[in-house]
Amino acid sequence: MSARGSVPEATVARLPLYLRSLLALAGEGNTTVSSEQLAGAAGVNASKVRKDLSYLGSYGTRGVGYDVEYLIFEMSRELGLARERSVIIAGAGNLGQALANYNGFTDRGFPVAGIIDADEAKVGKMVSGVRVYAVADLPQLADGHPGCIGVVATPASVAQEVVDRFVEAGISSVLNFAPSVVSAPKGVTVRQVDLALELQVLSFYAGRNEAGRKIPRRVIGN
Amino acid sequence: MSARGSVPEATVARLPLYLRSLLALAGEGNTTVSSEQLAGAAGVNASKVRKDLSYLGSYGTRGVGYDVEYLIFEMSRELGLARERSVIIAGAGNLGQALANYNGFTDRGFPVAGIIDADEAKVGKMVSGVRVYAVADLPQLADGHPGCIGVVATPASVAQEVVDRFVEAGISSVLNFAPSVVSAPKGVTVRQVDLALELQVLSFYAGRNEAGRKIPRRVIGN
Repeated sequence: MSARGSVPEATVARLPLYLRSLLALAGEGNTTVSSEQLAGAAGVNASKVRKDLSYLGSYGTRGVGYDVEYLIFEMSRELGLARERSVIIAGAGNLGQALANYNGFTDRGFPVAGIIDADEAKVGKMVSGVRVYAVADLPQLADGHPGCIGVVATPASVAQEVVDRFVEAGISSVLNFAPSVVSAPKGVTVRQVDLALELQVLSFYAGRNEAGRKIPRRVIGN
Repeated sequence: MSARGSVPEATVARLPLYLRSLLALAGEGNTTVSSEQLAGAAGVNASKVRKDLSYLGSYGTRGVGYDVEYLIFEMSRELGLARERSVIIAGAGNLGQALANYNGFTDRGFPVAGIIDADEAKVGKMVSGVRVYAVADLPQLADGHPGCIGVVATPASVAQEVVDRFVEAGISSVLNFAPSVVSAPKGVTVRQVDLALELQVLSFYAGRNEAGRKIPRRVIGN
């Protein structure tokens, strides 16, 4: 099916949100789900959900909905979650250690293969149960974990250099946690995580709520 | 304008993406921007961008586009970024320290007011330049920073307890980094950050690229 080859980027970004919702529904014993139920999970309307799922070749039954187990299977396969994919973290600082220690990675099929760090004093040590390697060890580490994802958890000032090293080592998927924009050659996918982005979204709702309450910030003489 | 009161959730989630893009464009000296240019930043098409911006009361000029400075002003105001909003982090572990040390927070108007931790040995210490407070100090800390955002950076097992404490202290915006679903009463906004979500998106693209290359994983006798 040629349509399967061109899932829009915005749809791809919503698949993990649907999947999380489906896993929760399955956990509660639900066997079917409506497009309306999935809509809330991804912040879109039900017709967008039906469009998204049609890219995966999934069409619900009118009045019944979608089969939860089947959608989980389809979506996991589509997201490549049927196989494990290792993660190599650059940077053994607080963020690198926090990520190495984050249960959400290993639990969902992304075991951490190693941490690389430029600080020789850290090399060979275990951090959050993961070994720290020298930068020079990166090519060998990457070779040992084909298809692995490189995670940048260094200061912003060296993020581009780290990405270049990842690419040289043959890594073609990079997740950048450093607050700086990095570039990579064609064929390498880079995703930027912006930890402050959600704070901005919260700030929006907080502003709305404060305005809605219409409570004066300071009441003088009361 | 009544329309201004009901910006869809999906639009709100895209505002920070547009804003980041606009700031980069302004930094490069651009004074106007087209909806097509902004579309890429948020993974949507140009007509969706125009719809989103219309919620903010911004309508571009045909053949010219939108005024960059004006959009930055409008969007920052809409996101409540004109004022600083403090952040209180729960958990002085690796993740809490990494967040306290994350330049992206302070740079964008979210100074970290303090870290609270249940471990008395850490209370009173400075961590990434931020003071660690006891759990009992939370109400006073929250009172001193009206409208602050509570950030959960604890293990998943205590995340719900932390959210309850935040709510008791009058905090109505919570960002949860712990990999567990938490609930809060009506009127409290909770956003869940899922650090593994982007790994799933990368896994999708990596799978596609690997399939596209059509290189067999193992070639026997060759």
